[in-house]
Amino acid sequence: MQFASDNAGPAHPAILEAIAKANDGHQRAYGSESAMDRVRARIREIFEAPQAEVHLVATGTAANALILGCMAKPWDAVFCSEHAHIEHDEGNAPEFYTGGAKLSLVPAPDGRITAAELDRVIGPVGARSFHNAQPGPISITQVTETGSVYALDQICAIGDLARARGQRLHMDGARFANAVAALGCSPADMTWRAGVDALSFGGTKNGCLGVEAAIFFDPALAADFALRRKRGGHLFSKHRFLSAQMEAYLAGDLWRDLARRANAACTKLVAGLLAHPEAEILHPAEANLVFVSLPRATLRRLIEAGADFYVMDGDPMTGDPAERLTARMVCDWSLGEERVARFLSLLG
Amino acid sequence: MQFASDNAGPAHPAILEAIAKANDGHQRAYGSESAMDRVRARIREIFEAPQAEVHLVATGTAANALILGCMAKPWDAVFCSEHAHIEHDEGNAPEFYTGGAKLSLVPAPDGRITAAELDRVIGPVGARSFHNAQPGPISITQVTETGSVYALDQICAIGDLARARGQRLHMDGARFANAVAALGCSPADMTWRAGVDALSFGGTKNGCLGVEAAIFFDPALAADFALRRKRGGHLFSKHRFLSAQMEAYLAGDLWRDLARRANAACTKLVAGLLAHPEAEILHPAEANLVFVSLPRATLRRLIEAGADFYVMDGDPMTGDPAERLTARMVCDWSLGEERVARFLSLLG
Amino acid sequence: MQFASDNAGPAHPAILEAIAKANDGHQRAYGSESAMDRVRARIREIFEAPQAEVHLVATGTAANALILGCMAKPWDAVFCSEHAHIEHDEGNAPEFYTGGAKLSLVPAPDGRITAAELDRVIGPVGARSFHNAQPGPISITQVTETGSVYALDQICAIGDLARARGQRLHMDGARFANAVAALGCSPADMTWRAGVDALSFGGTKNGCLGVEAAIFFDPALAADFALRRKRGGHLFSKHRFLSAQMEAYLAGDLWRDLARRANAACTKLVAGLLAHPEAEILHPAEANLVFVSLPRATLRRLIEAGADFYVMDGDPMTGDPAERLTARMVCDWSLGEERVARFLSLLG
Amino acid sequence: MQFASDNAGPAHPAILEAIAKANDGHQRAYGSESAMDRVRARIREIFEAPQAEVHLVATGTAANALILGCMAKPWDAVFCSEHAHIEHDEGNAPEFYTGGAKLSLVPAPDGRITAAELDRVIGPVGARSFHNAQPGPISITQVTETGSVYALDQICAIGDLARARGQRLHMDGARFANAVAALGCSPADMTWRAGVDALSFGGTKNGCLGVEAAIFFDPALAADFALRRKRGGHLFSKHRFLSAQMEAYLAGDLWRDLARRANAACTKLVAGLLAHPEAEILHPAEANLVFVSLPRATLRRLIEAGADFYVMDGDPMTGDPAERLTARMVCDWSLGEERVARFLSLLG
Repeated sequence: MQFASDNAGPAHPAILEAIAKANDGHQRAYGSESAMDRVRARIREIFEAPQAEVHLVATGTAANALILGCMAKPWDAVFCSEHAHIEHDEGNAPEFYTGGAKLSLVPAPDGRITAAELDRVIGPVGARSFHNAQPGPISITQVTETGSVYALDQICAIGDLARARGQRLHMDGARFANAVAALGCSPADMTWRAGVDALSFGGTKNGCLGVEAAIFFDPALAADFALRRKRGGHLFSKHRFLSAQMEAYLAGDLWRDLARRANAACTKLVAGLLAHPEAEILHPAEANLVFVSLPRATLRRLIEAGADFYVMDGDPMTGDPAERLTARMVCDWSLGEERVARFLSLLG
Repeated sequence: MQFASDNAGPAHPAILEAIAKANDGHQRAYGSESAMDRVRARIREIFEAPQAEVHLVATGTAANALILGCMAKPWDAVFCSEHAHIEHDEGNAPEFYTGGAKLSLVPAPDGRITAAELDRVIGPVGARSFHNAQPGPISITQVTETGSVYALDQICAIGDLARARGQRLHMDGARFANAVAALGCSPADMTWRAGVDALSFGGTKNGCLGVEAAIFFDPALAADFALRRKRGGHLFSKHRFLSAQMEAYLAGDLWRDLARRANAACTKLVAGLLAHPEAEILHPAEANLVFVSLPRATLRRLIEAGADFYVMDGDPMTGDPAERLTARMVCDWSLGEERVARFLSLLG
Repeated sequence: MQFASDNAGPAHPAILEAIAKANDGHQRAYGSESAMDRVRARIREIFEAPQAEVHLVATGTAANALILGCMAKPWDAVFCSEHAHIEHDEGNAPEFYTGGAKLSLVPAPDGRITAAELDRVIGPVGARSFHNAQPGPISITQVTETGSVYALDQICAIGDLARARGQRLHMDGARFANAVAALGCSPADMTWRAGVDALSFGGTKNGCLGVEAAIFFDPALAADFALRRKRGGHLFSKHRFLSAQMEAYLAGDLWRDLARRANAACTKLVAGLLAHPEAEILHPAEANLVFVSLPRATLRRLIEAGADFYVMDGDPMTGDPAERLTARMVCDWSLGEERVARFLSLLG
Repeated sequence: MQFASDNAGPAHPAILEAIAKANDGHQRAYGSESAMDRVRARIREIFEAPQAEVHLVATGTAANALILGCMAKPWDAVFCSEHAHIEHDEGNAPEFYTGGAKLSLVPAPDGRITAAELDRVIGPVGARSFHNAQPGPISITQVTETGSVYALDQICAIGDLARARGQRLHMDGARFANAVAALGCSPADMTWRAGVDALSFGGTKNGCLGVEAAIFFDPALAADFALRRKRGGHLFSKHRFLSAQMEAYLAGDLWRDLARRANAACTKLVAGLLAHPEAEILHPAEANLVFVSLPRATLRRLIEAGADFYVMDGDPMTGDPAERLTARMVCDWSLGEERVARFLSLLG
């Protein structure tokens, strides 16, 4: 009953097999291996984007920070949700890779920023002078950090705003597959057709060991990517072990399949929680994670029975048993609906 | 007959098996898995350094740059060989991670810097003012970039100089195992007992997929390492796949065994080259790489017969057949003496 | 009737005379001139802080950014008001000089942050991990950007919080003299006795050409200041022209005298505005600047009559005459109560 | 007998008068004052460069570092002389403002780099990959740090090389006026007609208090200058005191006149040194500074008689009296030939 993180789960066997298969004698290093050509072609196919530039790195923070480095100048502001992973959970990596750009936070009560709020925070066009941070890229997270999923028209509205202002749009897609599975839409519709210029396409949380793709729908933005990646120490010499993972991940729609499993488990979990008198769901839970408020006593009982999840706002083991705390529960591809059922039966 | 790089070779099967074995359900993420505790303990044991701080990253550039970031201030100069990998082959990563420190180059005719030359380049103690870059860490590479190996007393002389001046000493040990195998010495003697404060301990070039240890013999230097690693995007969520590699690499002295194989292949290669009338060995070749001067016609013939190596100073396929060019030939653990024999018979 | 900025006003004649007098043949450069010794001694005397480290730079942004660079690590968050000059008006200089620290904004309805709000924004002690920005320095502005002035007990409460958490406290004192004049307190009471570790002590806005002092009440924080200032290009070779300004500024309490004049003009201005039926004062105006809401038609009339001030939220010359806009009016030392009277008579 | 530095000398009275005259009531701030328009026009006229972008800062290090920031990417190498001020005397400011570019040193026995040596150091066109620092701007100093002056054809050869390679050319003209005076050429011939893309045009060493112009002959390079200057904290609010200095400096060719005086003093000094049996001139002394080798006893005698100069390589007061040491002697505009005569009579 592991709900702590989709980062804590195992890799899918097909990914491991691909790595073993890639370990075949000497090969060209640093991304010039033939598997990388296949990965690039496959991503262009999936995204219906024949011009897209594609690069691989091993961590989501690296993907986000390197892409933002390509999009933002050091004197820019990057606009993102008040809950954004790039703001809270990347240890100032975006600031590091942009050379000191500022993150300007947009209120997002349910995890999603709106074009209107974004417009307000950026301020009137032309109002910023050289005293102020300049209007730089906008970054949205899909699936959001609170478990909600942007509808296509919400992304389009933000994309339209970005284009009208001459700003760029980045999507942090650490859980991109889960969003595609949730919306049942095409990857192209959720990205470049909606105005997204660059995407961090996650693999690690959804069954890989550690691989993320930086996908630039506007290839001009990627002009310096290879130099930035090397400078960041993120270029793998034995790069074939990254491309092998990504190739297997994309083969036969494994990536969508794993996301569907994770979402299905979460849907079952949410249904169970909704039916429980004590539980209060705090944000729309539309993909594979849910924030739920429960009394400390209940959380404690679940933990003692072997459940693992992250409590956001206090120690579940010590304190007033009636106090309500917020737990984040994440379902990864490997969890399975059975384990969810067991958990719900424990919850009672 | 792959001599292009020890980066182009395969991983050892034991490393792959360890990864597969580590893929066992949910585990704690970000380095708090139990395998990391075992790796830390094993490295402390091998280095006879119970206080050492140990962290894992996936690339050698990341290890070097993060360690130098811990040792150098942005207004410092880092002193290294004119051939140093950190100067020539890391895309300004050291400058990035130190916040803009300068690399000051020390002449090193055979790849090794000497304490005397280092002393001359740094200049008299106290002579630098706030106008100048401040005397920061010294970085040496063992095995050097030209294939030579520092003798222990050479390292000690540099370590003594560093200590006398209050500067720190870093060792780039991308081929540390090959140096240990070449000298037959203890890891402790080649590092902290000789004055080395921090070591980049390589695994990738010697049979791993991608893992390097940053080892701090002075734990105070590592105080910010975890924060720097996260900020650099180098913290793996599924960190167990790094620790599994390193654990297997260190188990039963696999690391030394693989290095011995690589060095043995190179010894055979060097002997063959020395016996050849056209070949001129350019630097002491004391571990697993050799720089050799040969006529273009000969290099071309070898390439056409299937040999792969890096030519430093020209196109081997086009130009005056008699012109001498310099080839770098690297032997990895998997090469084997048979393939060397085949190559030498081609050379004739 | 110049209310645009205290930056737009002239220097006091005594400052210019001091510069002319300092132009006396050859002198030691880079801050080792004797006038700097006198400046240091005088500041220590005024602040009753015999250990304070004192350095001069030419701009307020340089003073703030260099001091924050000494106080914050690149992975830290700096906590400041949502209105802070360092957030809005320094073109990402704080991010640049800290190597990429993040500014975390604290709500401040009247321009002042409170210890309670600050505590809430920083979050529980120990709750931040290496994923998050670390709790770095707190920066407050005195006089605030909205014209209010922190009372001593408000600064003390923030100082106590900082000390209890092991965080540092910086004061942006671009209008420090105006705050001292407003509170009638001692410089020591408003700074180190209240927990302030370092102060940007402004001269430029209050009658100098361009000079600010970076004052470190904890000298340990200043260990790298000289190196940081040089690296930032802020060390003047003919430094005597900075120290001459500061010496004259501090002589005979000129600094307080000029601030008193500016505050007196503003007091008169505020009284006049309060008496006007159309005017609405938006923030406590306790020193030398005031934010006032007036109908566009009125603002336009004043501008056409020769008044100069900054309109925050729209074009005063075009649009609905009845729409209310916010004007910022700043009184500098040279303005004089007569000109205020003339302005008020225009206002009618 | 002040030969220590042209930084240690006084400002010319005309500069001070201009500052006093500029102190006239309220004026627009931040460089939008009318005097800046006049400065811009005058520099365009002097340089016969109607498109040139012109900005003012207060220090030479700021001018150099900000210009290099506009020209170099963080992953570039900047190529400069082994004696370059930007390498040795700016406390890593170029690295800071470029975001971590590397300075690659070109041998320059007499202070001047040659196109041929430069070509060798940069290496064959196209030979650098993403592992290496990329070929960034070239920076030359005119007058050089050793007192020599590039002839026009030497600059043209470097300019041609830069253009052929697609690299940019910067000139550090801290002593630009002295070079113009030495060569008797037009500013245009020494800069953009010879291939120089941007110039640090010095005022401080030649009679100003503290002002330098960043002149971009290719205005595209200056696109971000205003943002970079603000981010560096180098934008003066009371900018009129910078433009007033520069306006007076350029009026009636004061700048050339002062440089001619300094050069004339140095010419006399060099003639006297050449006539002295003990003195050995170490580099071509073609403008206003000279490096001379003299026995310690002689240097000591001169110092004790009141002469002031910088001894490069040892303590002139203590040690073997016969040991030869190198003194740097700099003549500023205010020194005068009489004082040189007095010094030479002391030398005997």
